[in-house]
Amino acid sequence: MAVTRSPLAPRRFPKLPAIAGLSFATAACGIKYKGRTDVCLMVLDPGSTVAGVLTRSKTASAPVEWCRAQLPHGRARAIIVNSGNANAFTGKTGETSVRRVVDAVAAGLGCRPQDVLAASTGVIGQPLPTEKVLKTVAGLPAKLLADDWKGAAAAIMTTDTYPKGAVRRTEIGGKPVTIAGIAKGSGMIAPDMATMLSFAFTDARLPSEVLQTLLRQAVDKSFNCITVDGDTSTSDTLLLGATGKARHPRISEARDPRLAAFREALEDLLRDLAQQVVRDGEGASKFITINVRGAASRNAARRVGLAIANSPLVKTAIAGEDANWGRIVMAVGKAGERADRDRLSIAIGGVRVAERGEVVPGYDEAPVAEHMKGSDIDIDVDLGIGRGKATVWTCDLTHGYISINADYRS
Amino acid sequence: MAVTRSPLAPRRFPKLPAIAGLSFATAACGIKYKGRTDVCLMVLDPGSTVAGVLTRSKTASAPVEWCRAQLPHGRARAIIVNSGNANAFTGKTGETSVRRVVDAVAAGLGCRPQDVLAASTGVIGQPLPTEKVLKTVAGLPAKLLADDWKGAAAAIMTTDTYPKGAVRRTEIGGKPVTIAGIAKGSGMIAPDMATMLSFAFTDARLPSEVLQTLLRQAVDKSFNCITVDGDTSTSDTLLLGATGKARHPRISEARDPRLAAFREALEDLLRDLAQQVVRDGEGASKFITINVRGAASRNAARRVGLAIANSPLVKTAIAGEDANWGRIVMAVGKAGERADRDRLSIAIGGVRVAERGEVVPGYDEAPVAEHMKGSDIDIDVDLGIGRGKATVWTCDLTHGYISINADYRS
Repeated sequence: MAVTRSPLAPRRFPKLPAIAGLSFATAACGIKYKGRTDVCLMVLDPGSTVAGVLTRSKTASAPVEWCRAQLPHGRARAIIVNSGNANAFTGKTGETSVRRVVDAVAAGLGCRPQDVLAASTGVIGQPLPTEKVLKTVAGLPAKLLADDWKGAAAAIMTTDTYPKGAVRRTEIGGKPVTIAGIAKGSGMIAPDMATMLSFAFTDARLPSEVLQTLLRQAVDKSFNCITVDGDTSTSDTLLLGATGKARHPRISEARDPRLAAFREALEDLLRDLAQQVVRDGEGASKFITINVRGAASRNAARRVGLAIANSPLVKTAIAGEDANWGRIVMAVGKAGERADRDRLSIAIGGVRVAERGEVVPGYDEAPVAEHMKGSDIDIDVDLGIGRGKATVWTCDLTHGYISINADYRS
Repeated sequence: MAVTRSPLAPRRFPKLPAIAGLSFATAACGIKYKGRTDVCLMVLDPGSTVAGVLTRSKTASAPVEWCRAQLPHGRARAIIVNSGNANAFTGKTGETSVRRVVDAVAAGLGCRPQDVLAASTGVIGQPLPTEKVLKTVAGLPAKLLADDWKGAAAAIMTTDTYPKGAVRRTEIGGKPVTIAGIAKGSGMIAPDMATMLSFAFTDARLPSEVLQTLLRQAVDKSFNCITVDGDTSTSDTLLLGATGKARHPRISEARDPRLAAFREALEDLLRDLAQQVVRDGEGASKFITINVRGAASRNAARRVGLAIANSPLVKTAIAGEDANWGRIVMAVGKAGERADRDRLSIAIGGVRVAERGEVVPGYDEAPVAEHMKGSDIDIDVDLGIGRGKATVWTCDLTHGYISINADYRS
């Protein structure tokens, strides 16, 4: 377990306001970690709507499968989360565990089990210590607090070195609306979905179909644009709950123009959370922003960006503060998207390095080398063949990643 | 530069026989490395045929593009190779360099430039020191030797820690035929083509179309089944030359049954060379064989195998000698191929670990933990849904990889 806070971490956990109709309770259950919380209950008032995006892994965890079955209802009263054990690849035993935990939460809150969503994160392939969790869950309803965002963000961490939270204040039809959320994740992170776990909440009053459309669009420009190691988790879960307490006009369609600010705020919030995950990438020492433009399409641009972001050779060069742009060329070439060597341009830290298929005349590496020493690295790639563009965020690949992952389980 | 020989290296370079109609010359040109050879000329007698497989990178090097243009002729008299500079992403300058070097070789041998193939490997994006190379090339024809396989294998190395060679003796229509080859590569290795550089030669007398078909089929089960870091090179080149000196019956079709033994020998030779590349994977401490069966198709099996082989989390777990099979489950899930959690079985070192979606009852980790301590790790995955199977080879991801790649260029 990493104990040192990532050098790329934000200075502090932000001040997140209470959201009307939402409360949290956490507890230390001892699933895997000692001396810290590892279970978190989030409770929503009756009438709340929910949307979600889940991992596309073919070996998804039992709680993911439970969510996949319940999300179409569009309603939720609670989300129960544990860290330390992913309850993934645990067969029928795992399904039974989810059901027993969900039933216990529903009984404690007096709601239907279908309205309880679940998420687990941690080791794969080991049965969840269900009895332990049940015992802890029973005590949670008595401990609910309106604004324990930081406690919730801490309880869901695994190899994370800091809790992650963000808030955006916006409006719908001129009435104030808040969106806030938490996230966890530092390894096994790649689209789609790159979430690991993230839970966002708003006091907006929106039908679940509208919420789902907005969420899917926002994920596409945030969590689906980050990668740490290219490994997609079995447990990726992003849920967005809406308590409906805000007093804005009734909205029935995602394309309603009065949603413009909300849409932007949601995208911004998720991008903030996604970037915080990258900044906590296992062993990360550099935060890397890759802007790709001139691609055949937006998706092509994103795939080229991810090919660069996932290249071990690019990531290690950046870890070594080496402006080895040849490796960026290699990664563009392997992306499988349309590219033309003789139209490709690359800039690092805003300095044009290569243009139309070769190094720029009189290229001076000094300012680029200086940029490489910083903690935030910017790479701009112009494929020069179309109008598609995308931005992707990642971190470098260091000795720290190897150290953390060569003995994570033991 | 790594200087210590890989712990997974074969004990010695094999004894490779001269092939009638083939000779080698090497020289130290000082392109990047000091005190070692870095240019190699391979000369074939008139009448030789040739086949090749090249990188599919969209940013392929200048020599790769030269080969792509010449290979359809199916004839070759020489192959000129340099290490230390890839002559990739060097624009028109790079194309001119290739042409000048090729012209010089052709002049020295008295053949057409079209019959001279070229390959370069090393740093990307820096112009080739063409004058230096030309000066060296001029002296090569006088230095030709019939059996300097080891010298040739050493001259084409970059971060390799040992020269790689292999030989197979076989027959066509009852007459003895030999195939031998060399390879280089230790990083930036992934399908397709996973070659880095490899040059194989035979004394068989085969039309270039036949040679091309046999080569493509053999590559599919050898070089296209290995990966070190998932990064596809801009320079991957595999050439197979046939001098036609063997006295076997005339063959005009790849499906001729008299080619059965030759086909098998070629596949075996390329698999040997490909595995030697993996065993020299940058920083490698474990050689990993991944057998996938029960997939929807052979290609699906290979893709699942490569998803496991390329997963940083699987590779680091193996580096840490941790039998963390949960990460194998994760990698199967992210491969994007048909899979069913409840039919999936996994064995490590021949010990069944997980079966039908969960850990086997009474699983004893001791023998698996013991297997993980060895240098050769075997992983068997049965998807349980079809008859497709494939084997993929890779190595672990260690601190050594980071050390080598965080300061390769400097």
